[in-house]
Amino acid sequence: MALYERVALIGLGLIASSMAHAIRAAGLATEITGHARSAETRAAAVEIGLCDRVFETAAEAVAGADLVVLAVPVGAMGAIAAEIAPHLAPGATVTDVGSVKQAVITAVAPHVPEGVHFIPGHPLAGTEHSGPRSGFATLFRNRWWLLTPLEGADPAAVARLRALCEGMGANVEEMDAAHHDLVLAVTSHTPHLIAYTMVGVADHLRRVTQSEIIRYSAAGFRDFTRIAASDPTMWRDVFLTNKEATLDILGRFTEELFALQRAIRLGDGDHLFEYFTRTRAIRRGIIEAGQDTAAPDFGRAAEAGKGTEKG
Amino acid sequence: MALYERVALIGLGLIASSMAHAIRAAGLATEITGHARSAETRAAAVEIGLCDRVFETAAEAVAGADLVVLAVPVGAMGAIAAEIAPHLAPGATVTDVGSVKQAVITAVAPHVPEGVHFIPGHPLAGTEHSGPRSGFATLFRNRWWLLTPLEGADPAAVARLRALCEGMGANVEEMDAAHHDLVLAVTSHTPHLIAYTMVGVADHLRRVTQSEIIRYSAAGFRDFTRIAASDPTMWRDVFLTNKEATLDILGRFTEELFALQRAIRLGDGDHLFEYFTRTRAIRRGIIEAGQDTAAPDFGRAAEAGKGTEKG
Ligand SMILES: NC(=O)c1ccc[n+]([C@@H]2O[C@H](COP(=O)([O-])OP(=O)(O)OC[C@H]3O[C@@H](n4cnc5c(N)ncnc54)[C@H](OP(=O)(O)O)[C@@H]3O)[C@@H](O)[C@H]2O)c1
Ligand SMILES: NC(=O)c1ccc[n+]([C@@H]2O[C@H](COP(=O)([O-])OP(=O)(O)OC[C@H]3O[C@@H](n4cnc5c(N)ncnc54)[C@H](OP(=O)(O)O)[C@@H]3O)[C@@H](O)[C@H]2O)c1
Repeated sequence: MALYERVALIGLGLIASSMAHAIRAAGLATEITGHARSAETRAAAVEIGLCDRVFETAAEAVAGADLVVLAVPVGAMGAIAAEIAPHLAPGATVTDVGSVKQAVITAVAPHVPEGVHFIPGHPLAGTEHSGPRSGFATLFRNRWWLLTPLEGADPAAVARLRALCEGMGANVEEMDAAHHDLVLAVTSHTPHLIAYTMVGVADHLRRVTQSEIIRYSAAGFRDFTRIAASDPTMWRDVFLTNKEATLDILGRFTEELFALQRAIRLGDGDHLFEYFTRTRAIRRGIIEAGQDTAAPDFGRAAEAGKGTEKG
Repeated sequence: MALYERVALIGLGLIASSMAHAIRAAGLATEITGHARSAETRAAAVEIGLCDRVFETAAEAVAGADLVVLAVPVGAMGAIAAEIAPHLAPGATVTDVGSVKQAVITAVAPHVPEGVHFIPGHPLAGTEHSGPRSGFATLFRNRWWLLTPLEGADPAAVARLRALCEGMGANVEEMDAAHHDLVLAVTSHTPHLIAYTMVGVADHLRRVTQSEIIRYSAAGFRDFTRIAASDPTMWRDVFLTNKEATLDILGRFTEELFALQRAIRLGDGDHLFEYFTRTRAIRRGIIEAGQDTAAPDFGRAAEAGKGTEKG
């Protein structure tokens, strides 16, 4: 059942193209229009029939749409909002999929005209691939989609957007934007920065060759490289815009790391053992919450197509 | 074809039990004997028929064996070596599977009698599970098995051990023990410490509840928890015994992390963007080397049974 007449996707990368497939598959919209910055991406979208119509400007794409989805890097949201604002239909909903919420609200909200509903959102789903050809209909299935409505948001507009996310298979939760940014700093942003750093260190070494690192990369490191392979623009914007929470968590991280480093230096095995025992519990919790599995097929076939959810 | 008459497995955890299954499956030994510290583990081994005979002492298990495999935590290797030394058959080979090589050599080599070949080794394969029931025959398939023979090692004994590892499906490479420890510090040990630290930070937070972290853990963090779920004893021993290389790599890591942290604080997007772009290349190298895959099935089913290779 169509929830929206016309959904306009601004930005046609991994998230937007997955939304296009998912919306189509579930018949959630009558028409999908799209816009991306580059002629190349627009041509790819036309070639694979991602949208019903692809436009050269965001302004054209949003005209007459009752749902507009901003699916560009966080740092680009403000300029897009300014550009489309005069062309938004009265009563339309504008949402976004950015990985940071407070900064998007600061950048976008001032441009949204009276009578248009702005409901920020963030799907906790992704892979390390990007671009219009990387999307697939099941990306959001059983993943969280966090909505961070502003105070006084229209309940009917929120409910309709929530139904769209659920229609794509996601579990929807509402929370405050500041809290969102802190939670994501812990569960996603700081881990990504750390993974990037470790991969960077490996890249710099003299006494160990690149080819040795690549050959002998055990899974700990392989997981890091997968994480660190993500889109540089997206992650630059995440760290520039979720600065405070990331620096806060990073500060705690280095503090704990120094304590472990000191335990290693002093040969304090008890400290290490206790620490490593404690961290097991959180893993068990994640398995119990159904976010992952302990099934012992042991990761050969299993590892084949592993994606990484991020943002 | 049997390469050894009697293989004695000392320690009956993940690695030893996987070896038992793999040796059986390929008919690489005529008989397998085993010993583990606890009556519980020995009983489990008997129950599942892991070895032909399970002994209460390591000394009994190694008697008459032409291959002895030390598959206990790195910190326990020295005491075991001292205990079994008088019972080793002349001409036998002793190997180990410890994740650190120099410390094992220092602890074990002095006990090995004349006429017995000591050939240290390390399979780059594992999961986060442990114990006698966690093993499976294909654990080593297409994984590296690094041997670090001492100077003057008997070429025939090395070739025979190599054939055993290859018979279990592994790719064998020889290298110097010190180099091994440095390579592993980069590709495995430091990444594990970092993952443990990040999971520990998440565990400590006040403003974000444990249940939120568990619910919203995106893959970056989920990969970390998987890594950090590994056996605390094993990892304590790894860090205590590969201290120098780990501290060296950790020092470089914190240096780079501080540079990125500073870039975030100063809002230096170019620095971040360049760094994140550079780290992508190493990921591509790993995919090209066949250590992982870029196949976009996107990790739902795929993630099901993911193991982590470590050590
Ligand atoms: N990837 C994830 O794992 C993930 C998960 C959750 C949320 N998110 C969020 O989703 C958003 C989109 O991410 P994505 O993974 O879909 O990215 P993507 O695959 O790299 O696609 C980004 C799209 O935005 C367009 N774009 C980039 N810069 C632009 C600009 N300055 N003006 C106009 N359009 C621009 C790109 O157009 P061109 O192709 O023409 O350059 C492209 O179509 C980001 O805000 C990200 O934080 C991502
Ligand atoms: N797990 C990995 O990913 C991995 C990968 C490569 C190499 N390794 C190396 O392989 C070795 C074994 O690891 P694992 O994963 O197989 O461990 P595991 O599943 O925890 O099993 C360890 C075995 O060693 C025995 N053991 C422990 N402490 C002992 C002691 N002080 N004296 C005698 N026996 C003792 C245990 O007996 P009880 O059960 O009776 O306590 C158990 O049978 C370690 O050196 C590790 O560094 C591990």
